[in-house]
Amino acid sequence: MPTRADVEAAADRIAGRVRLTPIMQADAGVFAPAGRAWLKLEQVQHTGSFKVRGAFNRLLAAGELPPSGVVAASGGNHGLAVAYAARELGVRAEVYVPRTCPPVKVAKLRSLDAEVVQVGDIYSDAYEAALKRVADTGALLAHAYDQEEICAGQGTLALELLAQTGGVDTVMVAVGGGGLMAGIAAACEGLAKVVAVEPENIPTLNAALAAGEPVRVPVSGVAADSLGASRIGEIAYATAVRTGVRSILVSDEAIVDARRTLWNHRRLVVEHGTAAALAALLSGVYVPREGERLALIVCGANTDPSDLV
Amino acid sequence: MPTRADVEAAADRIAGRVRLTPIMQADAGVFAPAGRAWLKLEQVQHTGSFKVRGAFNRLLAAGELPPSGVVAASGGNHGLAVAYAARELGVRAEVYVPRTCPPVKVAKLRSLDAEVVQVGDIYSDAYEAALKRVADTGALLAHAYDQEEICAGQGTLALELLAQTGGVDTVMVAVGGGGLMAGIAAACEGLAKVVAVEPENIPTLNAALAAGEPVRVPVSGVAADSLGASRIGEIAYATAVRTGVRSILVSDEAIVDARRTLWNHRRLVVEHGTAAALAALLSGVYVPREGERLALIVCGANTDPSDLV
Repeated sequence: MPTRADVEAAADRIAGRVRLTPIMQADAGVFAPAGRAWLKLEQVQHTGSFKVRGAFNRLLAAGELPPSGVVAASGGNHGLAVAYAARELGVRAEVYVPRTCPPVKVAKLRSLDAEVVQVGDIYSDAYEAALKRVADTGALLAHAYDQEEICAGQGTLALELLAQTGGVDTVMVAVGGGGLMAGIAAACEGLAKVVAVEPENIPTLNAALAAGEPVRVPVSGVAADSLGASRIGEIAYATAVRTGVRSILVSDEAIVDARRTLWNHRRLVVEHGTAAALAALLSGVYVPREGERLALIVCGANTDPSDLV
Repeated sequence: MPTRADVEAAADRIAGRVRLTPIMQADAGVFAPAGRAWLKLEQVQHTGSFKVRGAFNRLLAAGELPPSGVVAASGGNHGLAVAYAARELGVRAEVYVPRTCPPVKVAKLRSLDAEVVQVGDIYSDAYEAALKRVADTGALLAHAYDQEEICAGQGTLALELLAQTGGVDTVMVAVGGGGLMAGIAAACEGLAKVVAVEPENIPTLNAALAAGEPVRVPVSGVAADSLGASRIGEIAYATAVRTGVRSILVSDEAIVDARRTLWNHRRLVVEHGTAAALAALLSGVYVPREGERLALIVCGANTDPSDLV
């Protein structure tokens, strides 16, 4: 399980490789009765999401790699991030995706010089093939969320946030596999509480907390492309329990509304999954206490913005 | 002509009404040989552009208004800004637009409680009608750029920028009628030089500097919707001459490329006009000197993002 010290070590390791992303204060009174509230604009990060933080940390912590390089299974933000980080570090990257992966995503991965391997019809086929490749060649596996270095890397975002704001009471973040949440929870342990927001349609953490262990959940809805893990990571679950992360759920309708609000009122384009944290506030599922200092993580924008106008 | 003191007075006047917009540092080496470079993300301002700064300053400097309120002629960012500021201050707003104004823009103005008056076929018909209305009723005219309070209000963005960055050598900004440029030049006088970037297809400042006075220019090209003034404002021209603003021109192709780059590499959506400043750097028209500290104003995002994907 990552600790704050692991996140600090990750921050040292990836310094200069990732962007210090800006924060922006919410308008006074918008989230009343909360006091100040900030958005952390991580969607302007390299490749459009926080995922490069973990990817760089995983690669840099591993030391020298075999010629087979790094392997990932993801047609989404994680795949892009691993491809980008590998290219920057001069490492070969193989990204496994199912044959059903949209050509536009494959093209994007290739534009980052990744070797794209298309296997099977569903994500788990690609994942199994990636594991086999790692076993066969000794390549480094960069998991999308369930590795210490991945979680610690993502958590570096929270160190920035705490420094930029001078400290907050609460960090609200969307959860899929839980890598970002785990890193933030580790970075904020003893300093701020973490609220993990999930779509009702993909309650990986919520179901795990209810069951007392990670369990498989059905995946559907508007945020499935970015938060569509079917089970919370072991590391994320254990870190959430250790640090007392609070889990809440929001409807798809609230997510769609929040994404639209970010465009209409701030000209920010985000993925549906990213909008979940804001949705919890706007829909009233999370009610801040008087004077609470809030931070909302805006974590990704790999989305088609054409439906926003 | 606005001075730095006017801009400082404007900042006091509009404090709490506008958003302190974030800055973001450019990746090291991207604009080499420049040293550090920042983007000022003003497109996240209320109504999606810097224009509310001037609108609030014009309204608040005017004191009590007659029942006819404030009048503006604009179907674009200025109209939205005046409507928003008036609503926030409980003032009646009449916005004059030609009958050719797209229904979506009229609807947006109405959603901000503005009275929309559609007159004539072209912008100048609407503008003449607005002037007549002001003469008939004593309403306050909020000009899109050629008023001291408008220019000074827009310049407050530069005071923020100088404080956020700790000072820069050069501010690069797109120019239409020149209100923002004039305010920035006043705020930065003696502190930083200002580079005014215009599309080759709408060279209002460039032609005025060549002619020794504001002259009418043809208006066309991709940025005509946001930078489409046909003549630089008198105040903007005089301020540019006084402060030694440097004028440069960029092609429409370079503007389109820069707008796409902001989306592809930073997930920022902006208007074509806004992308002109970045276009000057990316296309090599402006070559920074060794170590130059640059700021680029990203000033508006009232655009349809569907062509970005």
